[in-house]
Amino acid sequence: MHIRRTSAHTVWDNAIPPVAALVPGAEITVDTGDASGGQLGPGSGTAEVAALDFDRVNPVTGPFLVEGARPGDALEVEILDMTVGGWGWTACIPGFGLLAEDFPDPHLRISTIAGGAAEPLPGLRVPVVPMIGTIGVAPPEPGAHSIVPPRRWGGNMDIRHIGPGARLVLPVGVDGALLSLGDAHAAMGDGEVCGTGVETEASVRLRVGLRPGAAPPAPVVETDPRTHRAGAALATTGIGPDLLGAARDATRHLVDEVSARTGLAPVDAYLLASIAADLKISEVVDVPNWVVSAHLELSLLG
Amino acid sequence: MHIRRTSAHTVWDNAIPPVAALVPGAEITVDTGDASGGQLGPGSGTAEVAALDFDRVNPVTGPFLVEGARPGDALEVEILDMTVGGWGWTACIPGFGLLAEDFPDPHLRISTIAGGAAEPLPGLRVPVVPMIGTIGVAPPEPGAHSIVPPRRWGGNMDIRHIGPGARLVLPVGVDGALLSLGDAHAAMGDGEVCGTGVETEASVRLRVGLRPGAAPPAPVVETDPRTHRAGAALATTGIGPDLLGAARDATRHLVDEVSARTGLAPVDAYLLASIAADLKISEVVDVPNWVVSAHLELSLLG
Repeated sequence: MHIRRTSAHTVWDNAIPPVAALVPGAEITVDTGDASGGQLGPGSGTAEVAALDFDRVNPVTGPFLVEGARPGDALEVEILDMTVGGWGWTACIPGFGLLAEDFPDPHLRISTIAGGAAEPLPGLRVPVVPMIGTIGVAPPEPGAHSIVPPRRWGGNMDIRHIGPGARLVLPVGVDGALLSLGDAHAAMGDGEVCGTGVETEASVRLRVGLRPGAAPPAPVVETDPRTHRAGAALATTGIGPDLLGAARDATRHLVDEVSARTGLAPVDAYLLASIAADLKISEVVDVPNWVVSAHLELSLLG
Repeated sequence: MHIRRTSAHTVWDNAIPPVAALVPGAEITVDTGDASGGQLGPGSGTAEVAALDFDRVNPVTGPFLVEGARPGDALEVEILDMTVGGWGWTACIPGFGLLAEDFPDPHLRISTIAGGAAEPLPGLRVPVVPMIGTIGVAPPEPGAHSIVPPRRWGGNMDIRHIGPGARLVLPVGVDGALLSLGDAHAAMGDGEVCGTGVETEASVRLRVGLRPGAAPPAPVVETDPRTHRAGAALATTGIGPDLLGAARDATRHLVDEVSARTGLAPVDAYLLASIAADLKISEVVDVPNWVVSAHLELSLLG
């Protein structure tokens, strides 16, 4: 079965009728649109970012009814394979992102995606590590729920390890589960600090399974080694009593350090951090100050 | 030059006289004591954890005066090599740790360290990735400051990437910098969730350098690829509007999942998470819910 990206929705609502029914164990190929919902294209500029209609962003393809799924079951989703589009976009969207106050203006970089790398700036080649930003099941609560925040039922989790080879376990909230997915990225760092990765269309081959009564309290992933990074990295730190503040400081320090080392404009360093740097919680026990570190492979600094 | 672990202190204070002076570019070997300050040994049990004298914990060897260092300079520390002891300890210490409320009782596991692995429980072999938990310079503020929290000047940062091959850059706060280090771990996960890694004695060979006027706003590390993990991992998630709460939930879910898969007691799964699982900030932009994931290599689950 092959489901096109036109079968999409932009809110979570368990009343949305399924586009297809899946038998556990069956494989399916799902096409997903980019996170702008087609509002941005390879020729877009900053003006289109400022004009984005947020009611159309983050479309997900689905929902898929999984036959036999009941509330309290575990839905297993195996990502068998994934291809991404030939271009992607990364934007600083006003009011959105970890450093929204530092970067108030819209900014856009279009990447060509070819030969295993995305190129958001001439000569800056970021390895493609394809992933699914949004994947989840319908919540049991009735009505329309924003697609933006992730929840117990999954959704916009932006876990960069949900890509080829990964196995995702979601709790089932309603009869038939009602699985949807979209928001693919050709590359993203842990944290997705500016709020966008290399946003792109994709085609995802997956297999679903059911474990009756085994719903986890929150989504669980078994990751694939292909999502590991292998090189030496630059790591900046944020140290303080508030974990979110420490994450902001680590990111700010990375932006400044990358900017100083490469000459990149700070906003481009911010976008680079969002698509290629990983936020790690280094320690969260040495009272009262926590440490977050932001890691970017040195090979990306030229 | 070789400095013994008896040249140690347990508070940060810029009035502590230096134990040696280093010329920039010189190499030195520094022995460090374990984080209990010798209060625990390979034959210790839970009673000794409950009786720990906290005025003696986390000793650091030093301070080392770096000739020519002035406030505002950057002190570069290259970790050339590091050997760890033949045993280590990991404890749940009442009132300490990310899940202190879930695990109120003292608990101790002694690891033998041999053949590149630490073995906190029979048959559970955790790869040795040596690191320095505490490394920093004297703060410019006078008086004694607790060794527990890290600060702008470094200290108990517990960044697991500060090990062999890493380069650490610290801001200099006082004339001579006054560098000290200790609190070595044979293994630790990002987050150090129970508050201890595989705590051990160590011998560290390092080289210091100076960059005048180049003090970073917070410590910076260039990491070595040897600190990367290579295998497939189990990743549990915490999802919610508070990043610390999400970190707690991800850790709780990992403890429960590991416990269910292996039969380990929850407190031992908690200790295993502290020495081998990595807390990653998966996303911190999809308002209002953030995602923290806790990653543990599947190979450790047998």
